[in-house]
Amino acid sequence: MDPQKSPLAPASFPPLNDIGGVRFATAQAGVKYHGRTDVLVAEFAPGTTVGGVFTQSKTASAPVLKCREALPGGVARALVVNSGNANAFTGRRGDQAVEHILNAVAATLECAVGEVFSASTGVIGEPLPHTLIVDAMAGLKNDLGTATWEQAARAIMTTDTYPKGATQTARIGDVEVNLTGVVKGSGMIAPDMATMLGFIFTDAALPADVLQALLEPASERSFNCITVDSDTSTSDTVMIFATATAGNDRPQGVDDPVLADFKRALNALALDLAHQVVRDGEGATKFIAITVSGAEHDLAAKRIGLSIANSPLVKTAISGEDANWGRIVMAVGKAGEAADRDKMGMRIGGVQVTRDGMRVDGYDEAPVARHMQGQDIVIEVDVAVGPGRATVWTCDLTHGYIAINADYRS
Amino acid sequence: MDPQKSPLAPASFPPLNDIGGVRFATAQAGVKYHGRTDVLVAEFAPGTTVGGVFTQSKTASAPVLKCREALPGGVARALVVNSGNANAFTGRRGDQAVEHILNAVAATLECAVGEVFSASTGVIGEPLPHTLIVDAMAGLKNDLGTATWEQAARAIMTTDTYPKGATQTARIGDVEVNLTGVVKGSGMIAPDMATMLGFIFTDAALPADVLQALLEPASERSFNCITVDSDTSTSDTVMIFATATAGNDRPQGVDDPVLADFKRALNALALDLAHQVVRDGEGATKFIAITVSGAEHDLAAKRIGLSIANSPLVKTAISGEDANWGRIVMAVGKAGEAADRDKMGMRIGGVQVTRDGMRVDGYDEAPVARHMQGQDIVIEVDVAVGPGRATVWTCDLTHGYIAINADYRS
Repeated sequence: MDPQKSPLAPASFPPLNDIGGVRFATAQAGVKYHGRTDVLVAEFAPGTTVGGVFTQSKTASAPVLKCREALPGGVARALVVNSGNANAFTGRRGDQAVEHILNAVAATLECAVGEVFSASTGVIGEPLPHTLIVDAMAGLKNDLGTATWEQAARAIMTTDTYPKGATQTARIGDVEVNLTGVVKGSGMIAPDMATMLGFIFTDAALPADVLQALLEPASERSFNCITVDSDTSTSDTVMIFATATAGNDRPQGVDDPVLADFKRALNALALDLAHQVVRDGEGATKFIAITVSGAEHDLAAKRIGLSIANSPLVKTAISGEDANWGRIVMAVGKAGEAADRDKMGMRIGGVQVTRDGMRVDGYDEAPVARHMQGQDIVIEVDVAVGPGRATVWTCDLTHGYIAINADYRS
Repeated sequence: MDPQKSPLAPASFPPLNDIGGVRFATAQAGVKYHGRTDVLVAEFAPGTTVGGVFTQSKTASAPVLKCREALPGGVARALVVNSGNANAFTGRRGDQAVEHILNAVAATLECAVGEVFSASTGVIGEPLPHTLIVDAMAGLKNDLGTATWEQAARAIMTTDTYPKGATQTARIGDVEVNLTGVVKGSGMIAPDMATMLGFIFTDAALPADVLQALLEPASERSFNCITVDSDTSTSDTVMIFATATAGNDRPQGVDDPVLADFKRALNALALDLAHQVVRDGEGATKFIAITVSGAEHDLAAKRIGLSIANSPLVKTAISGEDANWGRIVMAVGKAGEAADRDKMGMRIGGVQVTRDGMRVDGYDEAPVARHMQGQDIVIEVDVAVGPGRATVWTCDLTHGYIAINADYRS
């Protein structure tokens, strides 16, 4: 694991708005790492509602299964997250480990077990030493309210090279509400879900069903539109907690016009967090935005975009700053979605490279080559068969990725 | 491009049986490379039949489209292949380039244009300088019969680090027939098709419809079960040519029992060639066989196998000789096919690693770690839901892959 910060990282952790009704504590439980925090507990005010979206993996981790069970209750009083061990593919022992942890949190914070949510990230297949987390609970309770956003974001990191957070404000009626989120993830990132772990907190008062209905499309256009290496984690989790301390009137439903600005803010927050994950893509040196238009429908556009974004040949070409647009054509072709070979157009860095299915006459590679030398790469493809449109984001595939992943567990 | 031979390459090019009715010539046309051959012409005896399978890419190359047009004719008198330029995504100009080449071959070898098949491999999107190939035809005609199998295999190479060929004999009734094939491919290898270009020649007498019906399943279990980097080429082509010089009685149809031994030989030949492509996977240091059993059906098993085989995290772990079986579980989960998390079993190098959805009690990593240090890695996964079974083959993902692909075109 290279401790060096990603070259695409922001200069520093951003200032984030506090969320009333949320208190954090972190601890060094020693699950796997030493000399750093590896457990985060969040305590929520009574009345906090919750929504969540989870990995589509058929081998989802024990904590994901437990979260899915508890979600219909719609109420959250606590969140507990550990890094270093994913508690995935750990069988009955894994389920029992989650139960021990949930019980300990509920007992310590005096709430119902069904109001506690948990997430784990790290190595798959190793039994989770849950007693280390259970034993840390008393101290964590004492420390509630002491951990900052940055400390919260750091406790949940695995191969991340920097802590990730973002903040937004929005108005619901006359009331200003805050949204703040933290996220971790840098490898095993792909739809669905893109983020290994993301947690969004708001002081808005929102019914659980509305939260859920807001989170799903926000995730679909952000966390589910990013990919680092096409690998889907067994643990991917994005949850939103609403503490209701801002005092807004509860909206009637997800279509209530009063939610327009909140939707904008949530979508922007999710996209900001998702982009931070890509910018920490293992070994990444380039941030790549791929917009596909002219597809049969939006989903087809997204599939073509992800086919480009997941192509090792495209990603290595960009790593080599090579404007090898032929590989992009190849990736469009293998997506399995309709594309008109003889009408396709492509722009790289805003420069028209192909039109009507072939390289433009008098193509000058110089401005494209200059664009490829930058950190932010913009690819636009028009497949010329319909109105479908989507944007996805990824990073390049480098020696750094190989170095990180060829000896992560060792 | 690293000129060093893959560590997984065979010690030398194998001796291959000649096929009556096939004459080769190669030339240095200078399409892109200098100081090496880049055009192969094969001339076939009158009465030669043909079958072919091609890329599923939606942006298939101009020569692929032309081959598909000519295939229903069922007759082949010539094959022309160039390396260095794929003539893909070259629009109308690309179609015209193929026509010029086919016309020149037909005129030179005095056959019908519809009896000439062509294939091109190399850079996508650059106009093919077809006049170089057209101008080389007179010399190529004079040289027919001079090129060896190895020279034929070398002329079609791109980033391949060694020429690839294989041979088999079979009996059809009382007659011994020969099958010999050459193949090229080392990157942009994935179903469907796995091989960029593969050509199989036999002296058997077989109707074109029988050839086609034999080639499809043989390819499905070989070329379509290998993957290097999940990228599907716009040019993938596998063709079979039968010259009828062996003098066997023509079989009644593909189900004629007289074909049993020929089917065995063709399947073995295709698998041998496919494995050679994987062994030349760009940057490969490990040859990986993945067998999935217990899937809902064979296709589900293949999809799970390819999900494992295409996972960058699995491939980098193997490159690092890390028995990180948790990543294999992750890749099973993301395949989208049914798997019983709590009954799954896995063996690596024949050693049981997991059983009933968790690591076996008293798991000793030492023998597995020793297996990971070898060149041939064997992974077996039982997903415990049905009778489906498949084996796929791939290689590891290494710094070598990045080095080759980050500056292939430059």
